[in-house]
Amino acid sequence: MSSEDVVVLAGGTGGAKLVRGMADVVEPERLAAVVNTGDDIEIYGAHVSPDPDLVSFWLADLIDARGWGLAGDTFAVMDALRALGVEVWFNLGDRELAWCLERARLIAGGATATAALARLNAAIGVRTRVLPASDERLRTFVRMSSGWQSFQEFMIRERAAPAVEGLEFRGAERARPTQQVLEAIVRASAIIIGPSNPLASIGPMLAMPALRAALERCDAPVVAVSPIVGGEVLKGPTAAFMSYAQLPCDAGGVARFYEGLLDGIVADEAPHDPHLRALQIDTRMDDAGARARVAAQTLSFADSLRS
Amino acid sequence: MSSEDVVVLAGGTGGAKLVRGMADVVEPERLAAVVNTGDDIEIYGAHVSPDPDLVSFWLADLIDARGWGLAGDTFAVMDALRALGVEVWFNLGDRELAWCLERARLIAGGATATAALARLNAAIGVRTRVLPASDERLRTFVRMSSGWQSFQEFMIRERAAPAVEGLEFRGAERARPTQQVLEAIVRASAIIIGPSNPLASIGPMLAMPALRAALERCDAPVVAVSPIVGGEVLKGPTAAFMSYAQLPCDAGGVARFYEGLLDGIVADEAPHDPHLRALQIDTRMDDAGARARVAAQTLSFADSLRS
Repeated sequence: MSSEDVVVLAGGTGGAKLVRGMADVVEPERLAAVVNTGDDIEIYGAHVSPDPDLVSFWLADLIDARGWGLAGDTFAVMDALRALGVEVWFNLGDRELAWCLERARLIAGGATATAALARLNAAIGVRTRVLPASDERLRTFVRMSSGWQSFQEFMIRERAAPAVEGLEFRGAERARPTQQVLEAIVRASAIIIGPSNPLASIGPMLAMPALRAALERCDAPVVAVSPIVGGEVLKGPTAAFMSYAQLPCDAGGVARFYEGLLDGIVADEAPHDPHLRALQIDTRMDDAGARARVAAQTLSFADSLRS
Repeated sequence: MSSEDVVVLAGGTGGAKLVRGMADVVEPERLAAVVNTGDDIEIYGAHVSPDPDLVSFWLADLIDARGWGLAGDTFAVMDALRALGVEVWFNLGDRELAWCLERARLIAGGATATAALARLNAAIGVRTRVLPASDERLRTFVRMSSGWQSFQEFMIRERAAPAVEGLEFRGAERARPTQQVLEAIVRASAIIIGPSNPLASIGPMLAMPALRAALERCDAPVVAVSPIVGGEVLKGPTAAFMSYAQLPCDAGGVARFYEGLLDGIVADEAPHDPHLRALQIDTRMDDAGARARVAAQTLSFADSLRS
């Protein structure tokens, strides 16, 4: 392996698991996760950044078995809000609330979201760089028959059930990726797009013109790992978004969404695209061994694509 | 007793206890507490209003045995902040944090502090009106040899230990008492200044020109209950502030501080002031019976002063 960086673009759980696997095969100093901030939400006086935090908690081995939040967290504050008659639609554990309150405090004090997360991650021993894709405001909104809602409201209030009729990344045209993100991409020896929802989790990052341009321009091979496993999406509403985009919910559809960016794709099925190099492996990441194996195989594949 | 209101001006614990005693002898609809907001602080994304909350928690019989906060509260969020390396100088329980976060949310949504507290109090069954003296910004600052600090910092960080060299109620000249406060005073049959720190807890309210004028103008007798019991201040740094104001720390000193406002004073000692009517009683309020007794005796005394 080269001495340059490995960059993983990540959104939700699939991307976070791949980053965790990658941390077993790449030294922390060489690994950078570039993470979606379109799902961020200000609530309870806190700045919640679900995707960067998911990656951070996975890296610290602190992710709760429920799939989000901190292991063993308590919910005293949310329970107390409910007792006061507040409709608590966005659930946040006490320790996670502290994490997000401290981020809000640091940002109010002038820190960037990137610097705030770096400081929080230092406190839990995460040495891998977890880079919010942008320090500027970019928010994902979903339209359903009842109207537009933020991504979190669509996911939680609506349980991602309604058909997706529109998708907007508000602020994306103006938002710039951070200097740290652009430098990581320029220095990268491999860029891996994690198995996250292409439209709703990776899409907000690609909607920033400077981030897309940096990926198009970079020397490193760009490889996507398909989030579709055994013909199904393991977690989250990827199918609804692929359907909205009129893309088949398979590796070929994922490849088409990333058209113009990819040098290769990793999936458990062969996409019907003769122009795209593909690696067909078991992409399930149910345990640490599988996560490290998928990470290593993806990295070797990316290395093999280097021009 | 008349059908008009009883108004109690309150700051810290002494005032809150008297309000609680008064709630046993006056119907909730007839009782209004007017409470100091000079100690308010925005922290952890929350709006903390220590004195109005103290009165509210006392009225709901939810005050913790430690003397502040909610009975049986947990401290998961503060513990988590400490684990993240945050210097937690202002301790707030999880349920109290929820209370203060919800207040901040209501205020950010356009509610006044008065309306926000009324809504919170409705949720815990408090029917007595707890009225922040003002909905506008007024903050108490204390100067010590090391410089100016907010009242909370002086009390908690400095443990109220340094000599008081200055006292400012920033914003008081511009801040207006609320309409609810002014109406309660106009309608009152008795106005009781609770046994709170005259300078630091009652002073910020009297520093609002319109509130002082309303008290000077009102028809009801104004009676102060001295916070000095058995020659000592039971709680808080009243002595340090009386000393700063060059007032003796006794009922006479309290009466002098309230000069021009009082029709009478209640204390366990006779003040050396031939022009002021005084009621000498045991003013300790260690249990519910004593609190109700002091309240009833104070009220009878006030009634006897009505012109």
